[in-house]
Amino acid sequence: MAQNTAIPKGTRDFLPHETLRRNFIFDTIKTVFTLYGYLPIETPAMENLSTLLGKYGDEGDKLVFRILNSGDFIKNTKITEDASSAKIASEICEKGLRYDLTVPFARFVVKNQNEINFPFKRYQIQPVWRADKPQKGRYREFFQCDADVIGSDSLINEFELILVINEVFKKLNLNTTIKLNNRKILAGLIESLGESDKFSPITVTIDKIDKIGIEKTSEELKNIGVSDNAIAVLKSVFTVFSDNTSCLNYLKTILSDNPIGMKGIEETELLLKYIDNIELTTKIKVDLSLARGLNYYTGTIFEVISNDVEIGSICGGGRYDNLTEIFGLKGVSGVGISFGADRIYDVISQLGIFPEDTESVSKIMFVNFGPREESECIKLANILRQSSISSEIFPDYSKMKKQMQYADKKKVKIVAIIGEEELKNSTVTLKHMLSGNQISVKSDLIVESVRKMMI
Amino acid sequence: MAQNTAIPKGTRDFLPHETLRRNFIFDTIKTVFTLYGYLPIETPAMENLSTLLGKYGDEGDKLVFRILNSGDFIKNTKITEDASSAKIASEICEKGLRYDLTVPFARFVVKNQNEINFPFKRYQIQPVWRADKPQKGRYREFFQCDADVIGSDSLINEFELILVINEVFKKLNLNTTIKLNNRKILAGLIESLGESDKFSPITVTIDKIDKIGIEKTSEELKNIGVSDNAIAVLKSVFTVFSDNTSCLNYLKTILSDNPIGMKGIEETELLLKYIDNIELTTKIKVDLSLARGLNYYTGTIFEVISNDVEIGSICGGGRYDNLTEIFGLKGVSGVGISFGADRIYDVISQLGIFPEDTESVSKIMFVNFGPREESECIKLANILRQSSISSEIFPDYSKMKKQMQYADKKKVKIVAIIGEEELKNSTVTLKHMLSGNQISVKSDLIVESVRKMMI
Repeated sequence: MAQNTAIPKGTRDFLPHETLRRNFIFDTIKTVFTLYGYLPIETPAMENLSTLLGKYGDEGDKLVFRILNSGDFIKNTKITEDASSAKIASEICEKGLRYDLTVPFARFVVKNQNEINFPFKRYQIQPVWRADKPQKGRYREFFQCDADVIGSDSLINEFELILVINEVFKKLNLNTTIKLNNRKILAGLIESLGESDKFSPITVTIDKIDKIGIEKTSEELKNIGVSDNAIAVLKSVFTVFSDNTSCLNYLKTILSDNPIGMKGIEETELLLKYIDNIELTTKIKVDLSLARGLNYYTGTIFEVISNDVEIGSICGGGRYDNLTEIFGLKGVSGVGISFGADRIYDVISQLGIFPEDTESVSKIMFVNFGPREESECIKLANILRQSSISSEIFPDYSKMKKQMQYADKKKVKIVAIIGEEELKNSTVTLKHMLSGNQISVKSDLIVESVRKMMI
Repeated sequence: MAQNTAIPKGTRDFLPHETLRRNFIFDTIKTVFTLYGYLPIETPAMENLSTLLGKYGDEGDKLVFRILNSGDFIKNTKITEDASSAKIASEICEKGLRYDLTVPFARFVVKNQNEINFPFKRYQIQPVWRADKPQKGRYREFFQCDADVIGSDSLINEFELILVINEVFKKLNLNTTIKLNNRKILAGLIESLGESDKFSPITVTIDKIDKIGIEKTSEELKNIGVSDNAIAVLKSVFTVFSDNTSCLNYLKTILSDNPIGMKGIEETELLLKYIDNIELTTKIKVDLSLARGLNYYTGTIFEVISNDVEIGSICGGGRYDNLTEIFGLKGVSGVGISFGADRIYDVISQLGIFPEDTESVSKIMFVNFGPREESECIKLANILRQSSISSEIFPDYSKMKKQMQYADKKKVKIVAIIGEEELKNSTVTLKHMLSGNQISVKSDLIVESVRKMMI
């Protein structure tokens, strides 16, 4: 009986046209990272569970894929029949699949600190795995594209990451807005309202304003015990300001005697000053409701949304101060961003703006009539390839129709035909697939002719 | 207490210079695959165990990394205290990490057959995982770089794969030899000697000639019950022939009335005829002792070795006829190759011939003296980046020495210095790091000047 060809739920096969489009996104991001001096690193798919667990909260821990120990894993383990799954898992699994690129990166920096050139600008584009409930747009295996600078607390790093974001989305032809905030402003604000003990639940709640609106958010704040006065002030800062300056000026009036808050305002003003001197295609909007869930952020935070497609954040990041401390390296500040390649793919797909060339790998295909004609095809294909023109010869002596269908499906730009007549005259017939135009050229002029037709 | 930064044994962190060198190899292979019309696909890291198990022999099955089922995996499982590891594993794991790219590819072709354009030329560059005992040059996570044509039995596919191999190693600047054989010749030979029942152990044994020599191989053949007469004939064909033609001619004399053997000779002659018309930098050598362990090969087989570094096979492949049958798709012939990126890396390293440019990502770094100078640096870096010249600004106002050390370690080609003097005169001082030469140029000529210095 034939075996099932199913794949694990939440995972995907990528067909050629999908892989090419994905590579277009990855290559664009990689090119921009490189343009700004970021260096690539890679870490193993598997990490020790001791590295992964305890970093993503209890819910996160449950979503880490565990790998069964090899060999006779049960030998030195006592499994009693009433043991729980969690207990047994901790006995028989030492390794897990990485859940994100951030924790492995922190581990990497500490482990390799003597070989790293600080400030360390690194990028990393690799898959991560999460045992999340699969649903539309959420997968159990997906790529993260991260860039970080670690070992420098200068705001020029934040500024350059904004340039990177701007450049990536410009190259991808997407209209975007970068939402900007600073965790110090949030901390100062909540502190000045006497609600510091509720910092975490408050930030989680205000993060939802976009989705549930200001009134529902106020209700939720009340439910978690925030005072009416505090809610009133929070509501006032979430009022839409006409521009970033008036927003920051208002904050200065209410946070004037709060050092942490003023520090956050100062950082944001400096960052905006950097940005003012450069022409960006992306919009920059200070958004005080932006909180970002992850607790390790300590300074500037940002998130990018598409102006044309509602899909949530397609890129995000921020400044963190203590990421490597848990692995034993203190006092190293860093700032990073992460592009969500899957969502970016969905946005470009919905807008239908993948560049046409992305999908066309072979520029020319030679129709194959038989051994004699084939020899000439091989010769010419070889000449084209030496000029870096991707070429292929249909491998079988099949009917013309079948060969043309193959070329059509593969989105080949030009089909080359060498039959008896062409062989006699040392010519080749070139058919432009899109227009249907056909020309006959001398074989020794094939490179120039193909180049001209590809324009 | 600080947490351990160890990674699972047999896995590796890749530092920037290593990642860049690895990417140079991957990119070279990818470029050549594309030049010949191969299309990329990707499959998930995890496959169902039913897809993986039973394809790699009993030993292989043991080396598949198993992934623990998520959630309360023990709930509906009866684990008695005397159950074996194998029994328990089969109860609590449904998924495993892919062991190679070949079996997932066969599964992919069958699953997606209605969306695939046959003959299907695909490439795939992804990691695989094996719970092998780690040792020098053998890892538990490593990349495979595969190209296959499936759905065509024309020998032009074998020929083009040889062109691909030749082109990849030419671009990598490696001297190589392609060893060529045909499983039909081996089958015919062993059949004609009346030893068909021992086909598998005989091929495994003769595969070792290179390592243990002809005499030891003869002994081993005797031990597995091969007749003295058969051994004598086998020894004669393994004698070194002066060229491929004399080798095939000799075979024709001893296999003249063996149809399968003659078919193998005919295929090899046709393949060599294709090759004769093209100039290759790699050597081609018919080697009858080449058997390749994998049982799914049915026609041409090849393996590539470095002529300069003894490290074993750095690329291999062959024709198979029934790979997709197990998943329910019959009568599809294919041929493929796989590059061993890790070994290729080792060969290039040992020869010390990684191109110098591979490691230098940032072409230019701006020294950062303070806020006023920094503004000018940002302006100029931005102009350079618009001309696709990778540029960075040192983020902190550190001492000159520290900044220069950073640039030196990062193998930056040019350091740009903008101090008070330069600011006043609208100039920039460019220092060529390798030669130490220094010039002062007008700021608005920076692109041309940097381009000239990079030559």
